[in-house]
Amino acid sequence: MQEVVQRLLAGDQRTLSRLISLVERGEAEAAQVLQALDAHTGRAYTVGITGPPGAGKSTIVDRLTALLRRQGASVGILAADPTSPFSGGALLGDRVRMQRHYLDSQVFIRSVATRGQTGGLPRTVKTLARLLDAAGKDVVLVETVGVGQTELGVLEVADSVLLVLVPESGDAIQTLKAGVMEIADIYAVNKADRPGADQLVSAITATLQLSPNTRGWTPPVVKTEAHRGEGLAELWEQVEAHRRFQTAASLLSQRRQQRRVKEFMEMVEEELGRRWKEQIQREPGMENVLQQVARGDLEPYSAALDMLKTSPLLAGRSEF
Amino acid sequence: MQEVVQRLLAGDQRTLSRLISLVERGEAEAAQVLQALDAHTGRAYTVGITGPPGAGKSTIVDRLTALLRRQGASVGILAADPTSPFSGGALLGDRVRMQRHYLDSQVFIRSVATRGQTGGLPRTVKTLARLLDAAGKDVVLVETVGVGQTELGVLEVADSVLLVLVPESGDAIQTLKAGVMEIADIYAVNKADRPGADQLVSAITATLQLSPNTRGWTPPVVKTEAHRGEGLAELWEQVEAHRRFQTAASLLSQRRQQRRVKEFMEMVEEELGRRWKEQIQREPGMENVLQQVARGDLEPYSAALDMLKTSPLLAGRSEF
Repeated sequence: MQEVVQRLLAGDQRTLSRLISLVERGEAEAAQVLQALDAHTGRAYTVGITGPPGAGKSTIVDRLTALLRRQGASVGILAADPTSPFSGGALLGDRVRMQRHYLDSQVFIRSVATRGQTGGLPRTVKTLARLLDAAGKDVVLVETVGVGQTELGVLEVADSVLLVLVPESGDAIQTLKAGVMEIADIYAVNKADRPGADQLVSAITATLQLSPNTRGWTPPVVKTEAHRGEGLAELWEQVEAHRRFQTAASLLSQRRQQRRVKEFMEMVEEELGRRWKEQIQREPGMENVLQQVARGDLEPYSAALDMLKTSPLLAGRSEF
Repeated sequence: MQEVVQRLLAGDQRTLSRLISLVERGEAEAAQVLQALDAHTGRAYTVGITGPPGAGKSTIVDRLTALLRRQGASVGILAADPTSPFSGGALLGDRVRMQRHYLDSQVFIRSVATRGQTGGLPRTVKTLARLLDAAGKDVVLVETVGVGQTELGVLEVADSVLLVLVPESGDAIQTLKAGVMEIADIYAVNKADRPGADQLVSAITATLQLSPNTRGWTPPVVKTEAHRGEGLAELWEQVEAHRRFQTAASLLSQRRQQRRVKEFMEMVEEELGRRWKEQIQREPGMENVLQQVARGDLEPYSAALDMLKTSPLLAGRSEF
């Protein structure tokens, strides 16, 4: 194991790939490796990137990566794809445009899926971001596919959260609905050459002025045209400004401590959930109860509460 | 309680409101009422409506409601808003356009939020849909705000799932990423007067032809201009056609049985999670472990596994 740790600390991409798979599969060995690596984390800056489909998140990630590489920084990219409930597995299809970075040993790209475990994705992304950190990446970019609840969970404890909108992606109020504006530290209005860009900037600014500013930081709004490379330097400058602000206000270490505690709690919940699910299969009479619920002989809500009351496995004699 | 049940079966809206709050708060009384009502369910047809922000889902729900009312059907509407991780509570802001239905006693509208419980929203919506069913609603429309993982969980077991897209909402491949195409039974291409509508219809049709048709049903694609009321009648005809198809193939009862089983399982998990979270607060030494994790003295992943191994409360002697 010590050899694996050394190779990872030296930034070996194949070792990193293998360790990520270990973490994703929840292998016992992962715990030891993570423990050995922990003292070597805390250097990478983690930026979450979210926004509606079609806003150009992948292009922004691609262009920011190119910019960071020119500055000499190494980059880790995690694309968080909540798995479809039917097909399973992360879709790498449209990541072709990232291809030009694939041959760059200072860029590491990985899609992360959940295989149907609700709540597992936010925890997994936190753990993998720490791995990339230990492997020496200067910046970790976490891109989400959608803007749902799981995605917010993925992002809420990134060092900075970047929300990408486009003139067509609906007015600010539609976005506010998903609660995402409350976690955004920086806004990008992408495809800013299209009609409505200035109105969107005004709408965001107005909405931000209405909301209580409890964080002492007013999120800047940056216009970008990512496909042409416009505005990316200014966007990254704002990320750096947010970093400086948080460091000066001692908010960065606070945010990172919260992230660690959250990862711990989510891991405990996840493991307990996994063990229950195994246990519930062995629950005596379970098959029979499920049939009665399906047929309509038992009502689902009360049958669930009854099972928790009477089950020998679940009601107090469980052995996790 | 018998009186409450009678009033609900008679369709009393205030009783319905109160029971919904009971279910949302997880009160013990809810189980008894749901049990008494269960024999009176199975009549309502449940349609899930999803799509990206700005696609016009709310307008489609509004127009379908008007259409159904003209046909003499009563309608229940559940708007599933995954709660923001910061603010809490469902936002009713833009539901003003539904106002014209508020005075109609045959229409019942409710926003449903989760208060941060991961996975709770899909279960809650299933339970509330049964309540609306028992209260005599002919059709239950479930509208989701976003298109993330939670939203797919909300919809996967509706009787029919309607996916609303607009020419601007990104190409079919962007949508496929979120896995939502696999659960859609009917497509609406809304704002069909805008450029790109026909191309979107072609892209959807082509994508559907590529994917394996395991359900024996090829999802129809309907062009709508909901704000002008165009295409809504055809859209609803397709929902009816899907209903007839499922009934003929005995798929509807199968889908509903799956929904009941899923609600039961989700309720068991939810309750176990809730009880466990209470318990972990009382865990001896917990505060100390959290501080060590935050400070970096303990590594989050392995510390979580260690706690599950050694905790007197969690490792075998738990009393749920």
